[in-house]
Amino acid sequence: MPIASTPSAPYYAVIFTSIQKEKVEGYASMSDRMIELAAQQPGFLGIENAREEIGITISYWDSMYSIKLWKENAEHRIAQERGKLQWYEHYTVRICLVQREYSF
Amino acid sequence: MPIASTPSAPYYAVIFTSIQKEKVEGYASMSDRMIELAAQQPGFLGIENAREEIGITISYWDSMYSIKLWKENAEHRIAQERGKLQWYEHYTVRICLVQREYSF
Repeated sequence: MPIASTPSAPYYAVIFTSIQKEKVEGYASMSDRMIELAAQQPGFLGIENAREEIGITISYWDSMYSIKLWKENAEHRIAQERGKLQWYEHYTVRICLVQREYSF
Repeated sequence: MPIASTPSAPYYAVIFTSIQKEKVEGYASMSDRMIELAAQQPGFLGIENAREEIGITISYWDSMYSIKLWKENAEHRIAQERGKLQWYEHYTVRICLVQREYSF
């Protein structure tokens, strides 16, 4: 997974930070599927992901409306429910307006 | 490292996404020192970090002014220069306004 190549700011970011349960059966394939599915959503700009002690997934979007559509996507909703039951001990979601970006 | 325990939105986030060079001598100790140093800065709210193929570090701040002070911190500036020379193949910095947060 490379660094996401996003357009000029402003745009939106959803930061999803999580602590997993000890057993996470079925997680990897669902996670891959969600990344594939997000990329097909309107307004999707990119995604970045890494996990050590905590997992961080950041998805980038063109608008709050696109974030809302993704949150309400039927297959994504099923994954969200399974996540709460099976995979996540705890998570935090932060909805952000990206105001400035620079690269090296 | 736990999930950052941040106050009610709005507040700010700096998303630092990076690809490292193959040899990163001295990186781990500098990274630990920067986390320690950031935590002493005015307006610091928390930090989250994970690295796999890419590294993601998110620091949270009370204001744009606190972010500016941290960017200009003398020891941090030295680390930024060393980072460009020695450790990072590529990085992107995104300055964000966190508008909404929820947890499970």
